Amino acid sequence: MTGGPLAGVRVLDLTAVVVGPVCTQTLADHGAAVIKIEPPEGDLLRTLAGKSPTPKMSSKFLAFNRNKRSLAIDLKAPEARDIMAKLVAQTDVLVANIRPAALKRLGLDPETCALRNQRLIYCSLVGFGQNGRYRAKPAYDTIIQGSTGVAACYARATGEPRYVPMVMADHIVGLIAVQQIAMALYHRERTGAGQTIEVPMFENMAAFVLQQHLYLRTFEPPLGGTGDPRLVNPEAKPLPTQDGYICISANTDAQAFGFFEAIGRPELKDDPRFSSVPARFANVQAYFELRARALKTRTTAAWVEIFDRLDVPAMPYHTFESLLEDPHLGEVGLVTTVAHPTEGRIKNVGVPNRWSNARREDYLPPPKIGQHSVEILTEAGYAADTIRALAERKVIVDGRLVGAPR
Amino acid sequence: MTGGPLAGVRVLDLTAVVVGPVCTQTLADHGAAVIKIEPPEGDLLRTLAGKSPTPKMSSKFLAFNRNKRSLAIDLKAPEARDIMAKLVAQTDVLVANIRPAALKRLGLDPETCALRNQRLIYCSLVGFGQNGRYRAKPAYDTIIQGSTGVAACYARATGEPRYVPMVMADHIVGLIAVQQIAMALYHRERTGAGQTIEVPMFENMAAFVLQQHLYLRTFEPPLGGTGDPRLVNPEAKPLPTQDGYICISANTDAQAFGFFEAIGRPELKDDPRFSSVPARFANVQAYFELRARALKTRTTAAWVEIFDRLDVPAMPYHTFESLLEDPHLGEVGLVTTVAHPTEGRIKNVGVPNRWSNARREDYLPPPKIGQHSVEILTEAGYAADTIRALAERKVIVDGRLVGAPR
Repeated sequence: MTGGPLAGVRVLDLTAVVVGPVCTQTLADHGAAVIKIEPPEGDLLRTLAGKSPTPKMSSKFLAFNRNKRSLAIDLKAPEARDIMAKLVAQTDVLVANIRPAALKRLGLDPETCALRNQRLIYCSLVGFGQNGRYRAKPAYDTIIQGSTGVAACYARATGEPRYVPMVMADHIVGLIAVQQIAMALYHRERTGAGQTIEVPMFENMAAFVLQQHLYLRTFEPPLGGTGDPRLVNPEAKPLPTQDGYICISANTDAQAFGFFEAIGRPELKDDPRFSSVPARFANVQAYFELRARALKTRTTAAWVEIFDRLDVPAMPYHTFESLLEDPHLGEVGLVTTVAHPTEGRIKNVGVPNRWSNARREDYLPPPKIGQHSVEILTEAGYAADTIRALAERKVIVDGRLVGAPR
Repeated sequence: MTGGPLAGVRVLDLTAVVVGPVCTQTLADHGAAVIKIEPPEGDLLRTLAGKSPTPKMSSKFLAFNRNKRSLAIDLKAPEARDIMAKLVAQTDVLVANIRPAALKRLGLDPETCALRNQRLIYCSLVGFGQNGRYRAKPAYDTIIQGSTGVAACYARATGEPRYVPMVMADHIVGLIAVQQIAMALYHRERTGAGQTIEVPMFENMAAFVLQQHLYLRTFEPPLGGTGDPRLVNPEAKPLPTQDGYICISANTDAQAFGFFEAIGRPELKDDPRFSSVPARFANVQAYFELRARALKTRTTAAWVEIFDRLDVPAMPYHTFESLLEDPHLGEVGLVTTVAHPTEGRIKNVGVPNRWSNARREDYLPPPKIGQHSVEILTEAGYAADTIRALAERKVIVDGRLVGAPR
């Protein structure tokens, strides 16, 4: 047992790239025992994000696959069917982001799995809900961003649609899947009932965007158009200083008046355009432009000190590099360096949330392809010579590390 | 009981604006009974996002506050202390995003609450972890975006930092808090243990960005710089067509070669810059520029049909308005129109995930300020004349609707 809140929960992870792996890593970080099922050539993410000291261990694979064990198996091989049936019978949770038609062919669809394990929680990560016309369409992060209005947020701000430069839809929907699974575990604990949950990327991201930007079209008849004007304002950016950028939030009167004082323009608090929350909302363009021009005379550090003193919320803007050097982040220990058995020293972005009474204490480094195939099949009840034969027939990959601690 | 997986779970919601309300609404949507504690003037979000048919019912407030009941109470009044103590003793979960020092003054800090209720799950939504130097700093969405590298993603793509035009950090961290609470409920069900969980926005968003963009600095010594080049490419945008934009993902050889065929340039699959995944990764700029120029000769609908036939993942680009008209979204019923007792007909963005064996069946419209104050205090054991006196002394607001169903 790992000590986390999900200690003892067994997860069978039939996912790849980001949406599934971020979900199962979060479950693993909180104590679940996760078996990552990979094809013999490994999760595509192993090669999608640049080079690594040994092959197929890309930075992004490392970021989303700690605390999991890898079973590399050719799911299309006839022998795989019996192995997977055993593993399904022995698990609490199954997470899949393989397309439903393929899962059906493999005997790993929700209905077949429920026959083997009535208490199973089956989380089906799909691109599009199966009761709508896009059900069979493939989903990729950019396609979801573009078709759910994420890219449209930029079009409203800058005139041109653009993707958020992160695998954002995958990442968010994977985090949502964790909620769904944890609630299903709670529900099962109280009722004994298993569950099948469909988590569609398109619907989840459409809901995310519409909750933000339905705006005055919420009302019928509409009281105006879509798009929260403060958010899609072209000037909604960190503000340039003498030596970089600063991030400011000055929404209440006290904060706005503090800002005016800081920049040596205290009279602006009596300017009818800026003297109240509704006035600044109505004149958001002028207010944002004023802010964008006001801070070029001092350094970011000097401004942060002034704003801190005047209770105006402010933080320095961080690049990826300066974020790694942030002193607060160092004090809370979010990013540590760990020794990986094959990749040498690697940065590990830790768990950001702190629990008083439960925490996973151990750490499993992101696995090589099939690193735990033999161990997992042994636990499932297979004899050593059977496992050896499966490896010889290339049904599984035995990727055990030679001479390295597990 | 509501029928959802969290049916019977009582939540005391001491949050405002977005990060807390999106968390507690998700709990409520899955069956929890949520009491929204508001100051007498109401949640700031009631006025932060434009006009509404009756005052203080802004579109964004409506988006994040269904299925909750409102108790409007002046927490600083001496009588409030006893009321809150009773409610804390009777709840399963408390979620707060009031600053820790203020909670302490009100007797609503985790330690004091745990004394009243040992099984309590206390989720503390904070801007910054309490064991680092930023612990007392105020947090707002833009400040978190700017200081955690979200804005830096754009700087890498376009040369200038910019916020994502959504209240994104709040929204994501609120969704993460749901995970944490659900896992704590499961853990409590098995062990009886209460829990205090600190969920800091800064650390959570820093982890989100670094998992995406640590890239070759994951390794020590680094194998290169930060920033996944496919994501921060300036051309990572929906592609212009004759009448709009289209979203394409063509990563595998089959997809890329299908794309070349679709645009009438099948010979490009033998071009050494584009003939394999590593070749296209190394020439990502040329590949993206080629794609950006190729599609102006046909309409989006014509291209989607062609790409569907060639198995190249593609979806039309949606604006906020066209997303509302999307036929798939209509078929799955994500957005419906409901009758609100005071705001008339409003759009309701429903729950995107589907459960086989548990679902909240009822729907509570987003409440007016203090709409349920009397009902909640009655349930807590207060007599009618005591409640009337509390309302007269303005300790609570009695916001019951006159002549409207509950």
